Amino acid sequence: MASAEFWYEFASTYSYPAALRVGPLAEARGVSLVWRPFLLGPIFAAQGWRDSPFNIYPAKGRYMWRDLERTCKAMGVPLKRPEPFPQPSLLAARVALALEGDERVNFSRRVFAAEFGEGMAIGDRAILGALLAACSVDPAAAFERAESAANKGRLKAECARAAEIGVIGAPCLVTQDGEVFWGNDRLEQGLNWAAGAHVGDDV
Amino acid sequence: MASAEFWYEFASTYSYPAALRVGPLAEARGVSLVWRPFLLGPIFAAQGWRDSPFNIYPAKGRYMWRDLERTCKAMGVPLKRPEPFPQPSLLAARVALALEGDERVNFSRRVFAAEFGEGMAIGDRAILGALLAACSVDPAAAFERAESAANKGRLKAECARAAEIGVIGAPCLVTQDGEVFWGNDRLEQGLNWAAGAHVGDDV
Repeated sequence: MASAEFWYEFASTYSYPAALRVGPLAEARGVSLVWRPFLLGPIFAAQGWRDSPFNIYPAKGRYMWRDLERTCKAMGVPLKRPEPFPQPSLLAARVALALEGDERVNFSRRVFAAEFGEGMAIGDRAILGALLAACSVDPAAAFERAESAANKGRLKAECARAAEIGVIGAPCLVTQDGEVFWGNDRLEQGLNWAAGAHVGDDV
Repeated sequence: MASAEFWYEFASTYSYPAALRVGPLAEARGVSLVWRPFLLGPIFAAQGWRDSPFNIYPAKGRYMWRDLERTCKAMGVPLKRPEPFPQPSLLAARVALALEGDERVNFSRRVFAAEFGEGMAIGDRAILGALLAACSVDPAAAFERAESAANKGRLKAECARAAEIGVIGAPCLVTQDGEVFWGNDRLEQGLNWAAGAHVGDDV
């Protein structure tokens, strides 16, 4: 079965619609998805950015929020800008990585919906705990696994891996043959590629 | 008739496929297009960039060239990276602005095809002259109009206008109601909006 990796960051605005869309899009193409939470911080820091580029470059930020508004409206999903933006996403990423399979997917979708659909503070342990409970995951056990040295190291390795394979932003769809498709608006293209639509394409 | 503005920059890589695609896409939706050449330099300078962000941020540059390669391959058009990148685009932009209607469109498409399809130096007056001649435009007369004080001032005003309406990169599709859609991959969305597909959308 064809498969692809979905790299996402909880602080990333476009990861929100992507996380809601990517599952059904992959299923429709017979592509199995691996959800890979990571942090953009190290990747941005390597470019000299200590904040979201949407804050560093206000014109880009204004464009992005309007564009996201249109995108969410077209999808019929709510959008409420969290304050501050970006939200601290480290704990959510550690928790997501400590979960496996459907639990990771369900938790991740709920985090995005809470953060960008309801403007909730996803750096808040109580809020993440409630989201875990809503996924039928025991919060205390999940936080313990999330904050273990092993899991912290694993997240660091994931971030290094992202940089290594050319993930330059979030979300990214990465195919088995190493193609990177960046952006919510490139999910279909990346999944088509993963499903073999490029067979015979000798680029 | 619905109309939209197509803002493009001759040094911009993604303006190349967009310039080849946008005409038929607009026609299919009954949208009349105004081609508006401009320069990204002043917009990038306002963000502190003195070079293409694809050069300043090499990881982003590597992604872009691979992505453009895939895009061109899928469209069945050639891609040859011009050296240096970005190409000096001031003269081409002045010439395009000095032309009107179909002449501007034809010349602009030829410039992009020469630059990114054949890797030609579009800062070279002789090359632009040959492209003008191929459009049945007298090169000497076109250069004279292009380099008149009035036309130079007009291009400056176009760049100021671009910044004012929220054009943050190239290409951009701008609708009559002021919506900006940035990127070759957003042409369809912008043109659908221009054609009224958002009627009833109260965002």
